Amino acid sequence: MRAEILTVGAELLAGDTLDTNFPFAARRFAELGIEVIRHQSLPDREEAIAEAVRGALERADVVLVTGGLGPTPDDRTREGVAQALGLKRILYEELRPALEARFAAYGKGRMPKENLTQITLPEGSMPLPNPAGTAPGFRLERDGAVLFVLPGVPREMQALLEEAVVPWLRSHRPVRARPTRVLRTQGIGESQILERFGEAFRGLEGVEVGFYPKQPGVDIKLVADDADPAAAGKRLDEAERRLCAALGEFVYGTGSVSLAEVVGRLLLERGARIAVAESCTGGALAAELLSVPGASRYVECAVVAYSNRAKSEWLGVPAEQIERHGAVSEEVARAMAGGVRDRAGVEVAVSTTGIAGPSGGTAEKPVGLVYSAVAVGERVRVYRSRHPGSREAVVRRAVMTDLNRLRLALREEAGGKEA
Amino acid sequence: MRAEILTVGAELLAGDTLDTNFPFAARRFAELGIEVIRHQSLPDREEAIAEAVRGALERADVVLVTGGLGPTPDDRTREGVAQALGLKRILYEELRPALEARFAAYGKGRMPKENLTQITLPEGSMPLPNPAGTAPGFRLERDGAVLFVLPGVPREMQALLEEAVVPWLRSHRPVRARPTRVLRTQGIGESQILERFGEAFRGLEGVEVGFYPKQPGVDIKLVADDADPAAAGKRLDEAERRLCAALGEFVYGTGSVSLAEVVGRLLLERGARIAVAESCTGGALAAELLSVPGASRYVECAVVAYSNRAKSEWLGVPAEQIERHGAVSEEVARAMAGGVRDRAGVEVAVSTTGIAGPSGGTAEKPVGLVYSAVAVGERVRVYRSRHPGSREAVVRRAVMTDLNRLRLALREEAGGKEA
Repeated sequence: MRAEILTVGAELLAGDTLDTNFPFAARRFAELGIEVIRHQSLPDREEAIAEAVRGALERADVVLVTGGLGPTPDDRTREGVAQALGLKRILYEELRPALEARFAAYGKGRMPKENLTQITLPEGSMPLPNPAGTAPGFRLERDGAVLFVLPGVPREMQALLEEAVVPWLRSHRPVRARPTRVLRTQGIGESQILERFGEAFRGLEGVEVGFYPKQPGVDIKLVADDADPAAAGKRLDEAERRLCAALGEFVYGTGSVSLAEVVGRLLLERGARIAVAESCTGGALAAELLSVPGASRYVECAVVAYSNRAKSEWLGVPAEQIERHGAVSEEVARAMAGGVRDRAGVEVAVSTTGIAGPSGGTAEKPVGLVYSAVAVGERVRVYRSRHPGSREAVVRRAVMTDLNRLRLALREEAGGKEA
Repeated sequence: MRAEILTVGAELLAGDTLDTNFPFAARRFAELGIEVIRHQSLPDREEAIAEAVRGALERADVVLVTGGLGPTPDDRTREGVAQALGLKRILYEELRPALEARFAAYGKGRMPKENLTQITLPEGSMPLPNPAGTAPGFRLERDGAVLFVLPGVPREMQALLEEAVVPWLRSHRPVRARPTRVLRTQGIGESQILERFGEAFRGLEGVEVGFYPKQPGVDIKLVADDADPAAAGKRLDEAERRLCAALGEFVYGTGSVSLAEVVGRLLLERGARIAVAESCTGGALAAELLSVPGASRYVECAVVAYSNRAKSEWLGVPAEQIERHGAVSEEVARAMAGGVRDRAGVEVAVSTTGIAGPSGGTAEKPVGLVYSAVAVGERVRVYRSRHPGSREAVVRRAVMTDLNRLRLALREEAGGKEA
């Protein structure tokens, strides 16, 4: 089953109004195993709507149109659909009492006759009463394809989608959820994944794979293309097993789990608390760790020591060390992690110090250079990275890269392995 | 001038990933007076891309395609465009050094040969070097229409749009910028703005107004509809004057200035340094302050004191005060701000303590309750808020609300006024 979604309205095309109807409907369709093959945003113009509806009906089994069902002259969706299908529009008298009652109920007084256009639908339409507004939607079938037209107000669209579209599709079309699995990776690029991927997937069929770069990190989405749920599940298990074998520790979890959540679980398993010492990331590393509900169980504190004085006074980094090696150095990263670990009285600590930019870089220490350290007990691992991009991107990449190092260090310590 | 925008990528059609490229480009085109007549989201399929590109080139003067330029086999945009225009793809050897250099610069090692597909472009394309990533964009002209193809990573797309698309359109097409001004507000809702707005704008014509809620905060965009730049400028000046008079201190700046930047300027004017003490916001308040380049000139440090012990040990909040009033209380917020101010040896401090949720709330202290304090010298102002929404939304709203309070307190102190 393939669907296309058309959202109508000038405000969407101006880029001013975020289109929430499309993602809502797209996710709902995906859950039913209906593949959305195209989305279009259209202006309130009859010809454009007609042309797009005709094209969509040729390509898709289900076409959903939202918006442009208001009572004003710039609402052109009913006309556009009628034109697309060569239908005339007729007044649906049976809908008049409900329309008038809604006007009365909201104290809007006598209904202007312009509103009758809202119940003047393409001939042969099945009207879909709107539980939340004046504009009814409608359904039309043509050559095996079905067309649903819904109002654009998100609350009304969502209500009609749940009440009139989803139930109809369930009982009239062979929709079924397609089993899906997401593997989340960190520390490996899309092209490196791809190098390992061909080998891993040799001979494996019936699983579609998509790559979703997350800046940084790549999600791998596996979708089983199998009518039998048990067989589909087996295919996904096999695909996951092979990918995990090929990608190893780069895979940090499945589904919607976040890297911070995985780190949190490892800390809970260890029974350890963590403290954070940040400089260039400015609090973003702590904020990411603490974005997980219940993080108070394992996060003790974080210190953002932006000035050199703060690094010495709050974290005990010797001033002469900063003087000799610079604030952005392996030595200072190490001292920051050790310092916050000891002062907070915890077992685990992570630190970052770097140059977020856009200025402040030198040939020797360029923008994007970040030293970080992970302390687990007495052992302190130190890392060096160079992150590309804007100040915001450098911070974001440093946060995710260092959370991943923390994850790997905790795993390694748990397994008793040496680095 | 009419434009169509095509955004390519399965992740967009699944409803999983918010398409930020379309609204960014649509607003940029609108500022140039280019009308966007259609937007399509397409899957990574060559035929679908080819068909959509052909249709768009028939209807529009400018066609912008984003996404699908990665190195993996599911990136099909280059092929789709070549097919649409009946062109073969050729390797642009002159782009190879830059591509290899980008790999080397970030220590990714030898470039996999798959990446050469990124510089194998439709014949006759003008390549558009990508300042922020490996995939170059390209430009093609056909029958008076122009086609721009840009990578889908938002940072890369935005950079290329500004550097390669907008300047080309300005010098090759009769576009003219419609003078635009953005007023940024914080602390006032859209409906309250609207109440004041009708009065303020009485009799003022030739200025279009748009409202952009920012969660929290509302941007007000003014667009002058005047062919003469001088007259347009005057209209905008008048509109800005009236709105600022009507909205007063709720307006914190114009253009793209951020609240954190405004706070930074006020601190620099005062010659003061700031320290931050956070609990529920978990580092996000510090991260927002430090998102401004050059913030090291006025940010001393931040302490995320998540546990009660950390509040006492790092900030000097008396344990018996936490015991008596609870960690989420006016008294503790006050003690946190005063504590970090004194220990960091700075003049200005801000603190937050609250319940970010989703659990941990009580009838008396519900999820979303946040106490915060702003210290300027000896004077400490304390505030209470209740923020709606998810954990993430509570944190975000608390950060922006408290930055705004900091701004207002610094303004007031600078003006010598009493609260």
